[in-house]
Amino acid sequence: MHRKRTTALLALALSAAIAAPLSAQPNAPAAAPAKARTMQQVIDASQASDWRALDPDNTLYLELARGRVVIELAPQFAPEHVANIRALAHNGYWNGLSINRSHDNYVVQWGDADSENPAKRKPFGKGVKNKLPAEFSRKSAGLAMTVLPDPDGWAPQAGFVAGFAAARDSDKGDSWLAHCYGTVGAGRDLAADSSNGAELYVVIGQSPRHLDLNITTVGRVIQGMELLSALPRGTGPLGFYETAAERTPIRAIRLAADVPQAERAKIEVLRTDTPLFADLIESRRNRQDDFYKRPAGHINICNVPLPVRAAAAAKS
Amino acid sequence: MHRKRTTALLALALSAAIAAPLSAQPNAPAAAPAKARTMQQVIDASQASDWRALDPDNTLYLELARGRVVIELAPQFAPEHVANIRALAHNGYWNGLSINRSHDNYVVQWGDADSENPAKRKPFGKGVKNKLPAEFSRKSAGLAMTVLPDPDGWAPQAGFVAGFAAARDSDKGDSWLAHCYGTVGAGRDLAADSSNGAELYVVIGQSPRHLDLNITTVGRVIQGMELLSALPRGTGPLGFYETAAERTPIRAIRLAADVPQAERAKIEVLRTDTPLFADLIESRRNRQDDFYKRPAGHINICNVPLPVRAAAAAKS
Repeated sequence: MHRKRTTALLALALSAAIAAPLSAQPNAPAAAPAKARTMQQVIDASQASDWRALDPDNTLYLELARGRVVIELAPQFAPEHVANIRALAHNGYWNGLSINRSHDNYVVQWGDADSENPAKRKPFGKGVKNKLPAEFSRKSAGLAMTVLPDPDGWAPQAGFVAGFAAARDSDKGDSWLAHCYGTVGAGRDLAADSSNGAELYVVIGQSPRHLDLNITTVGRVIQGMELLSALPRGTGPLGFYETAAERTPIRAIRLAADVPQAERAKIEVLRTDTPLFADLIESRRNRQDDFYKRPAGHINICNVPLPVRAAAAAKS
Repeated sequence: MHRKRTTALLALALSAAIAAPLSAQPNAPAAAPAKARTMQQVIDASQASDWRALDPDNTLYLELARGRVVIELAPQFAPEHVANIRALAHNGYWNGLSINRSHDNYVVQWGDADSENPAKRKPFGKGVKNKLPAEFSRKSAGLAMTVLPDPDGWAPQAGFVAGFAAARDSDKGDSWLAHCYGTVGAGRDLAADSSNGAELYVVIGQSPRHLDLNITTVGRVIQGMELLSALPRGTGPLGFYETAAERTPIRAIRLAADVPQAERAKIEVLRTDTPLFADLIESRRNRQDDFYKRPAGHINICNVPLPVRAAAAAKS
């Protein structure tokens, strides 16, 4: 929102001294305060071990005429849905189907436009379960969270688990993925257990956190978000397209593991369970470069960037 | 994100009994608890006095080939910028200029693509000041806020002032507009007082509240948001378009007061200073229709819808 000649400003944000330390482990002792750095300086200081490759078994490529959307699946949170999604991709279920909904400030959704029509709907194919349990949350045991220092409001605690914005309730012992921009979930009907992963949506607006614990989330968009978020909005109820011609055809959705090595995305994502990531959060929590006259001193999980880089940039 | 045949669900949301009352006046006594209603039921129960017409002196029409974007200006918060914007519109300053930036999950920005080039930039015209004071906040005196019952995180208090999402710090006595989806602000350079309203942006993603108190906000989009939010993203730094051909031409930006009555938008917006609006907030804070298995019990100012209706629907 600043003028063009200050284009460097947005990427750079001098961080204040860390006032509220972040821990990569639940209840871990506070890390030693790092010196104030911009996000770019934090990333520049990263080591190879601060980055991770995507697991091909947890990576989905949504192929559109205009390019590829890379989605990371979260089997830690929705094992049954992710297993179904892998099978659906393996079967080529989505190939030739379409993006059917673009609801401004809410979601873009894809799947079978004829899913309500038993005579026309596409069969799921081999190894896909019609019915799954709801996977709205899971037990927190075994999940390490990089906890945000600021209150979340929607949940007792929020932070990052294995690269995903997440929330938890330590009293109940439950954890779940948070609905942020780019979060991918499984559409359902009225019944909690009516999703099976064949119909998916991605958040394209203000975080609809009221959906948390009400629907099964399966992952998030890692790259290519703009191919979904900038689709023309549907003019039917809830942003569904009113005519077939308005829908965006899906060339294919493939699991990276089913794709030849040479065709896979060569990218890495920043780990969220490191002291470096905690520094990155702080660099966004208190921006003190010349553009910002007043650092916020606060951040929300949905405002924390999750950097991606070309694997070629990897340091040895 | 639910399937198509449950399309009615999103608009309807049974509210729980009001647990935390909302007051339309600062520190006013709590209103009597209303019975649980959906947002639609709240709106259906509204009276003519719950709605307001837009003031033509505070309404801007951004005319694009694909339609009209209606923006409400907030002179209460940025009187000097709004005065300049009125003069710029009156002078036809933006007519023939363009939308130059579309930054995914952040902002769409418009103005003079040649603003950095003294030889080519368009003159502002009569009555427009080159230099204005920063208007990041104002004194709270005289502003009635419908306060949210939930903590905001970014500010000591948040709520709605005269139809705008806003925040305030009662200790300092300051109020300011919040950066939500649809908020319109004035682009600036490094200096706090380097904006004059000629370059404007609108938020198209997760609320960038870190911009609050760092930039002058001038209003919000009331209608036509999808004409801006679904623009193809720019591929240059910060989402600027790399070629002139990618920019969206602006046919005109006009102040409604300068537009003949017959051409003005016939719309009304829901007042935010009424008990009915407090009920609407609660209907979104705790959704209990069949789709939602667990009401959130929390809401953020940027998640509260600000309903608009055709003026023809007005009840006498």
